[in-house]
Amino acid sequence: MVAVTVWNEFIEEQSDDEVQSIYPDGIHTVLADGLRERGHEVHTATLADPDHGLSDDVLDDTDVLVWWEHRAHEDVDDAVVDRVCERIYDGMGFVPLHSAHFSKPFKRLMGTPCSLTYRESRERERVWTVDHSHPITDGIETSFVIPETEMYGEPFAVPTPDELVFVSWFEGGEIFRSGCCYQRGNGRIFYFRPGHETYPVYHESVVLDVIDNAVEWAVPETEYTVSEDNISQPSFE
Amino acid sequence: MVAVTVWNEFIEEQSDDEVQSIYPDGIHTVLADGLRERGHEVHTATLADPDHGLSDDVLDDTDVLVWWEHRAHEDVDDAVVDRVCERIYDGMGFVPLHSAHFSKPFKRLMGTPCSLTYRESRERERVWTVDHSHPITDGIETSFVIPETEMYGEPFAVPTPDELVFVSWFEGGEIFRSGCCYQRGNGRIFYFRPGHETYPVYHESVVLDVIDNAVEWAVPETEYTVSEDNISQPSFE
Amino acid sequence: MVAVTVWNEFIEEQSDDEVQSIYPDGIHTVLADGLRERGHEVHTATLADPDHGLSDDVLDDTDVLVWWEHRAHEDVDDAVVDRVCERIYDGMGFVPLHSAHFSKPFKRLMGTPCSLTYRESRERERVWTVDHSHPITDGIETSFVIPETEMYGEPFAVPTPDELVFVSWFEGGEIFRSGCCYQRGNGRIFYFRPGHETYPVYHESVVLDVIDNAVEWAVPETEYTVSEDNISQPSFE
Amino acid sequence: MVAVTVWNEFIEEQSDDEVQSIYPDGIHTVLADGLRERGHEVHTATLADPDHGLSDDVLDDTDVLVWWEHRAHEDVDDAVVDRVCERIYDGMGFVPLHSAHFSKPFKRLMGTPCSLTYRESRERERVWTVDHSHPITDGIETSFVIPETEMYGEPFAVPTPDELVFVSWFEGGEIFRSGCCYQRGNGRIFYFRPGHETYPVYHESVVLDVIDNAVEWAVPETEYTVSEDNISQPSFE
Repeated sequence: MVAVTVWNEFIEEQSDDEVQSIYPDGIHTVLADGLRERGHEVHTATLADPDHGLSDDVLDDTDVLVWWEHRAHEDVDDAVVDRVCERIYDGMGFVPLHSAHFSKPFKRLMGTPCSLTYRESRERERVWTVDHSHPITDGIETSFVIPETEMYGEPFAVPTPDELVFVSWFEGGEIFRSGCCYQRGNGRIFYFRPGHETYPVYHESVVLDVIDNAVEWAVPETEYTVSEDNISQPSFE
Repeated sequence: MVAVTVWNEFIEEQSDDEVQSIYPDGIHTVLADGLRERGHEVHTATLADPDHGLSDDVLDDTDVLVWWEHRAHEDVDDAVVDRVCERIYDGMGFVPLHSAHFSKPFKRLMGTPCSLTYRESRERERVWTVDHSHPITDGIETSFVIPETEMYGEPFAVPTPDELVFVSWFEGGEIFRSGCCYQRGNGRIFYFRPGHETYPVYHESVVLDVIDNAVEWAVPETEYTVSEDNISQPSFE
Repeated sequence: MVAVTVWNEFIEEQSDDEVQSIYPDGIHTVLADGLRERGHEVHTATLADPDHGLSDDVLDDTDVLVWWEHRAHEDVDDAVVDRVCERIYDGMGFVPLHSAHFSKPFKRLMGTPCSLTYRESRERERVWTVDHSHPITDGIETSFVIPETEMYGEPFAVPTPDELVFVSWFEGGEIFRSGCCYQRGNGRIFYFRPGHETYPVYHESVVLDVIDNAVEWAVPETEYTVSEDNISQPSFE
Repeated sequence: MVAVTVWNEFIEEQSDDEVQSIYPDGIHTVLADGLRERGHEVHTATLADPDHGLSDDVLDDTDVLVWWEHRAHEDVDDAVVDRVCERIYDGMGFVPLHSAHFSKPFKRLMGTPCSLTYRESRERERVWTVDHSHPITDGIETSFVIPETEMYGEPFAVPTPDELVFVSWFEGGEIFRSGCCYQRGNGRIFYFRPGHETYPVYHESVVLDVIDNAVEWAVPETEYTVSEDNISQPSFE
């Protein structure tokens, strides 16, 4: 059991009828329910909460932070981004989903523009495992289908992943590096592409199974705190 | 021949007698002379110049930017950092030296604190090649000595390098990942540890030979511009 | 200009009418002509030649060895495989194509079974660049099409590539890591998937452009000979 | 608890007085005792056993195989090497120690000569963690000392590790990539340098702690069997 916080900007589910019809209680609620069913202890937080719901107290109780964001990138407070990134350096796991490739924390951790190509075309995606030894693929078929989704295509302007786990095929002709692992400090990051606000991607059981595996994987395996400062060191020998 | 700009904060050479005695015309001048002797076209720029000497016109004429910085990290203007990083994403090479591990551009590109341990102890360093196939090692012995240097030790809080080229041994008992390659967008980055303001490290010919190789390597090999924005893409098939 | 040797088992072009109709003088001849047109000095060698055409003299004059093989895997002499691998460790480039994933040299260099899935279905392939900074992509569009090809799919049982350059999309639903770089000793290896004996893949100009880039890239950038034996080393300090 | 098999050539402990004085019951016995104390179920096997003690039945009951070898490289039967490597592709962990860098299974899995430099000089080694997030470093200090050891130095002719965990410093001036992780098929491999037959390295508790961590890490995290053959695949879409 992992202590998970699911964060959501929680905007379009309250303002857009189509989004509301698919995620009436918010995407965070669907993700949280799916992770609770899979045995985790899940807390949720949203943009409108004080401190965006990500106070030190909340982060103290968070092993892994799952992040949904679509439109609110510029509205996320830099002080919260600082706090989240510092926690990641010290070992908190981080699982940004889909359009969170443009979130401030992910962009800061990557150090690159993180841009990509896209198409909202309700097309078929087939997600392929390219590293069957990776724990995030445990119990997942070699490929699985998302019947209706938004396309994300290359070039994806991120650093080369430390581990590339999934590559997606799209009906319209693209491929995309859909499951990318990074280590930053002591923190494990898994960017996972599938998801959308107007397609019911998070109602697909296999998508939640992958996020479940990612949450298990992202728990740090060592105790280690990264210093912000250089440290003076006497000679050993 | 590569069009190189050598940037220096150029502070301690003007304010500290010891530094001045070793680098009377500034560290940038020693680096620029060494690179000119090795066949490059070299321009210099410093913190005190307008725009820190890094206007769009200067960067238009720069293939590779070599960066020395020790104390002025917080004085470097964010707009200049933005400009430098955008150029790197579009293919400009970047060679931060020694204490530039704490420079704003390097930290932004890494997405991590970039801290390390250190000791100013005038001790011997032996730099080892661990990837003999790498072009930055061309003509460099399997190991070479810097007789008197400052120690930098692990943990070095950076992402795992895309290519690890050199590892240093220090008399006092440490090792350090001294030559680290990263790709960010279309830009090649080579962090090189050796160097110091009060030890004559940049008067060592082999150190300049490595920087020469790094400059040659950091020239982009493809034309490619990274988009800041996502791009809408029609279907192919 | 690179000194290239193109090796071909050269069997099916002499025994199978369909293959002969597409490659009447052998696949090696089409590859050699394409590389000569692109400025290289090209020699060819085949299985039936003494020493499979890969004597020490030939290898002495070879910077990069391009390898086509489909059926003859077990007929390649182990002594030749030894010789080829030793040359690669010492810096000769190696570009195995398509079904050469099952060649003895490639399997030995990988240390894994190198199996994959396949389908001979005359279907469309779209090859995507996932590392636009890589020299092998120079001048190549972000994606290009091979109109009729055999499918190769994941799982591809190779070590994680040191650099992943291309990923293919197939009409029938698969993706594949089609352009994979490896370093073994001082030798650069580029496995490139496209190609087939009954589809005219090597008559596609863009495929030859990629092989041209690969040949340029695979030339070693340093002088370095890998020892077969451990070496006794006196103390330095 | 992991099911570990510790394999030893078990030659010098029976033929060389100095080795016998340090490891009277064999290196495998010291390793096995240390792993049992740390909670694992440990079996041992040696070169002189039928099938070198590595029958299918033994391997069926082995999660992780720890391997000591110094002189007997050429005496290990190829059929056993085949069997061991196939098991590794299917997920068995493999932990070759010290001079097992020249064992047949390790060389086959690497695809390179695996040579290095060495000096038997009873000198001090300091092993540094360069990836504090790695589970193999759990509970291990940032650096630890082995008071008297044989030196191993670069160049170490292996592929670039998938994960570099430890780098050693030696009194005599060298560094070495001492803890190297590789994935081959579904199998996790951890090469660990420390160890010697005439220095009591495996009587150092911290060395056994690392091997304990490696054994825990090397257990496969997914069920996955690598095919030796290509697999025909019907179209999906």
